Amino acid sequence: MIHADSVLLTDLYQLTMLQGYWQEDMRDSATFELFVRKLPRTRNFLIAAGLEQLLAFLEAFRFTDEECLWLRQCGYFQADFIDHLARLRFTGAVWAMPEGTVFFPNEPIIRVTAPLAEAQIIETRLINLMQFQTMVASKAARSVLVAPGKLLTDFGLRRAHGAEAGLLAARACAIAGFSGSSNVLAGMRFGIPMYGTMAHSYIMAHDDEAEAFERFARAQPSNVVLLIDTYDTLAAAHKVVALAARLASSHLRISAVRLDSGDLLALSREVRRILDAGGLADCRVFASGDLDEYELERLIHAGAAIDGFGVGTRVTTSEDAPYLNCAYKLEEYAGRPRLKRSAGKVTWPGCKQVYRSYDPQGTMRQDIVTLEAEVQAGEPLLRPVMQNGHRLAPPVRLAEVQARVRQQLQALPEPLRKLSAAAAYSVTVADGLRRLAAKLGAPPLT
Amino acid sequence: MIHADSVLLTDLYQLTMLQGYWQEDMRDSATFELFVRKLPRTRNFLIAAGLEQLLAFLEAFRFTDEECLWLRQCGYFQADFIDHLARLRFTGAVWAMPEGTVFFPNEPIIRVTAPLAEAQIIETRLINLMQFQTMVASKAARSVLVAPGKLLTDFGLRRAHGAEAGLLAARACAIAGFSGSSNVLAGMRFGIPMYGTMAHSYIMAHDDEAEAFERFARAQPSNVVLLIDTYDTLAAAHKVVALAARLASSHLRISAVRLDSGDLLALSREVRRILDAGGLADCRVFASGDLDEYELERLIHAGAAIDGFGVGTRVTTSEDAPYLNCAYKLEEYAGRPRLKRSAGKVTWPGCKQVYRSYDPQGTMRQDIVTLEAEVQAGEPLLRPVMQNGHRLAPPVRLAEVQARVRQQLQALPEPLRKLSAAAAYSVTVADGLRRLAAKLGAPPLT
Repeated sequence: MIHADSVLLTDLYQLTMLQGYWQEDMRDSATFELFVRKLPRTRNFLIAAGLEQLLAFLEAFRFTDEECLWLRQCGYFQADFIDHLARLRFTGAVWAMPEGTVFFPNEPIIRVTAPLAEAQIIETRLINLMQFQTMVASKAARSVLVAPGKLLTDFGLRRAHGAEAGLLAARACAIAGFSGSSNVLAGMRFGIPMYGTMAHSYIMAHDDEAEAFERFARAQPSNVVLLIDTYDTLAAAHKVVALAARLASSHLRISAVRLDSGDLLALSREVRRILDAGGLADCRVFASGDLDEYELERLIHAGAAIDGFGVGTRVTTSEDAPYLNCAYKLEEYAGRPRLKRSAGKVTWPGCKQVYRSYDPQGTMRQDIVTLEAEVQAGEPLLRPVMQNGHRLAPPVRLAEVQARVRQQLQALPEPLRKLSAAAAYSVTVADGLRRLAAKLGAPPLT
Repeated sequence: MIHADSVLLTDLYQLTMLQGYWQEDMRDSATFELFVRKLPRTRNFLIAAGLEQLLAFLEAFRFTDEECLWLRQCGYFQADFIDHLARLRFTGAVWAMPEGTVFFPNEPIIRVTAPLAEAQIIETRLINLMQFQTMVASKAARSVLVAPGKLLTDFGLRRAHGAEAGLLAARACAIAGFSGSSNVLAGMRFGIPMYGTMAHSYIMAHDDEAEAFERFARAQPSNVVLLIDTYDTLAAAHKVVALAARLASSHLRISAVRLDSGDLLALSREVRRILDAGGLADCRVFASGDLDEYELERLIHAGAAIDGFGVGTRVTTSEDAPYLNCAYKLEEYAGRPRLKRSAGKVTWPGCKQVYRSYDPQGTMRQDIVTLEAEVQAGEPLLRPVMQNGHRLAPPVRLAEVQARVRQQLQALPEPLRKLSAAAAYSVTVADGLRRLAAKLGAPPLT
C-alpha cells in the first residue's frame, strides 16, 4: 500500500530548497550531522539503531519516472529542475556510530558529507529512520537491563504506528537484546525468532476451555503454550495439569502457560504452585499485558514466578518518550563551518568526532566531542561506512549488532543502568571545538 | 524497503491459531468487533479513521508465493496448512462507522463477520491500521478546535514512527481539518495540499542571511515564505522589509515569514509590528516548533500575532497518548455469543450496533449500544461497507471525510470541545444487551 522507499517520503521544503540550490548553482560539498539535543527525562543513555536501513535508502536513492511525472504536473517546480532531480543519486560519504553503540546528547551519531543537494534531500527520511529505531532500542534496553535471565519478546505490532513501525520496532527490540518477536514479517525479513501461540479468541471460539487447550496442544505439538486467563486463571491452571496427564500418553508436553490480565504477581505465584503440585515443574510461566521496564522491575523485585515476558505497546511506541529531540544540522559548507544561533537551539559547528575513554575495568568513563582533525586519546566512535555512495562493508548481521549492545551495556557505568534518573554521563567538548564556536559568535555553550 | 501490505505483517499466533482451526475444521462464521476500552486521560472523544486503508487491505488479502515458500521452510507449520493459506481470501462482511465519526469507549467502530479463519487472521493489521489513524485524527482535532480560522499544517514526518506513520498521519491530520502537510508523498498519494519552503540549512549554506532570502525569493517567486530565526529573529524581520522593497520592482512579494524557536508570543508580536511598519501588512506570520493543542491555545489566548501553525512531532506521535487501549474481540461464533471474563477486560458479547440521538439544535445527546437486532431510535452509526469481500462503495474521497468531521465537531457538546477533561459523554447499554451479558455470566458491568 505504501512505497516506504519512495524519495517523495520527504518534506516539501527539501525540494524547494533544492530548486534554490540548483538555480544558484550551489554544488559545493556540505557536511550535516545527526545528533540528539537532550535525553528524554526517562532515559540515562541512548542506543544508536537504524543505520542499516539508512544505508539501504541512500544506495537506492532515486526519483522514479512516475514520481518525476507527478512532480512535473503538481505545479510547484520548474521542468529543468525535475530533469536535475531525475539524475540525482547519493554519491556522498557517511561516517556513523555502529548500530548498537551507546551515545549521549550533542554527540554526532551520523555524519554525511556530499554535494549540498544530496546531503539536504535525504534529511527527512534519515531522521525518520534513525530516530525511531534509536528510540525503541533505547527503551527496550531498559527492559533487558532489569530482567536478566528472563525471556523477553516483542508483542507490539498491533499498536505500532503503522506497518514499518511494527517491523522496525521488532528489529530494534532484537538489537537491544529481546529474544524474539511475534511479528512474522520480522521473522522473514530479519531472521528474528518468532514467538506466540494463541489469543483469547481461540479459547472463546470453543465451547469449552479444556477442550480448546487439548485441541490446540494436539494441533501444535512442538510448542504448546496455553493462554489461561480467558475466564478464571486458577481454574484454567488446574485444567492444564489435568490435560498434561492426558497428553503424556501421546508423548506431548505443555511447555508454558501465559497470563495476560489481572494481578500478575499473585497469579503467577499461585499458578506456579498449581503447576508444581501437578508435576509440571518444567512448564514455564509467561506473562503479557501493559508491560514495560517499570512493571518488569516491580514484578521481578517482588518475586513474581514469571519466566518470560511479552512486552508490547509501551515499548514499541516508546510510550513515556515517543520521540527524540534530534536534529540533522549543516555543520560545514564549501569548506566553511556553519553555526545556527536560534534561541535554545545552538549547535556545535564543524565536522566532528567523538572519542570515548574507559577505566581499567572497561567501564565507560568519559566522551569528548572534537573537531575531526583534533585527534584525542580514546576510541573514535564515528567510523566510515559509505564512500562515493557505496557501502564500505556488506549489510550488518543482526547478531553482530546484538553482540555490540551486550558489550556496551556491560560497559555502562552502574548508575546509568538503573531506571531512575542518573547524573549525566560526562561528555566534554574539546578546546579546538570551543574556540571555533566562539569565533563564529556562538553564545556560551555548556 | 518494506511490504506494508504483506499479510505476514501479523502476529505469529494468528497463524498458529489458524492451523488449529484448520485441523479442527472450525469454519463457521465468526463476528469480531473493534472498540476502544477507555479514553486516554487527555481525550474527551475519538474520531474514527483508517477504514479506507483497512478495506484496501482486506480486498488485496492473500499470501504470495514467496511468502508461502518462506512459511513452508520456517518450520512452524504443516505443508497442507500452507496450501490452505495460499487459497485464503477475505470473503466476509464489514460494518463500520464512517471515517470521521466521533465515537466513545465500548462502542464498536468496526464489525467483521466472516468464516472464523478469515476474521481472525486480519486482526493484527486491522488494529494496526485503525488505531494509528484514529489516534492521530483524534489528537489533531483538538488543535483544530482551539485554533479556528488559523492555517494548520502537518510537519510531523521526520519524527513519525517510520514511513507509513508519516504518510498516514498526514492523512489523519487532513481528516481532522488541517489544511495540508509538508509530506510530499501524502500530496501524491492523497492529494493533500503541500506546505513548506526552507530550513535553517538553506540560510546557513549562504554566507549572508539577506542574500539567502533574496535568492530564495527569486527562485520560488510563487510562494515566498522566509524562515527568520536562524540568527536573530528581529534583525531578520527588518531584512525582510528591506528585501520587500527591492523585490517590488520585480513584482515579487513575500507572502509569509516563519518563526521556529524562541518566545513565539513575544516574537510574533514584534515581528508583526516590524512588518506592518514596513508596509507588509499582508505578509503573514507562520510559527512552528514543539507545538501542540495546548501551546496553540496558550498562544492564541495570549494574543500571539500568528496566522498559521506548523504542527509536527507532538501530534504525529500523539505524544500525550501514543496508543489507544483498543481490542478486536470475538463476539459470536457459530451463532452463539461469546464473552471474555479476564480481570479488567470484560467485554459486551454479541453482534452490536450503536444508535446516536441529538437534541433539537443538532447537538449530540446520547449513544446507546444495542444488540444488532435490538433496534432503537436515533442514527445507527455502524453501516455496511463490505460484503462477500467486496466494497459496497468506491474508495472514499478525503473531502467527504473532512466534511463529516466538520459536521461532527459542530455537533459535539460544548464541554467535550475543550482541552480539559469533561464529564464523560453518555453512552448507555440497551436492556437486551445487558440481559445477554448477565446470561453469559458476565460480572456486573457499568
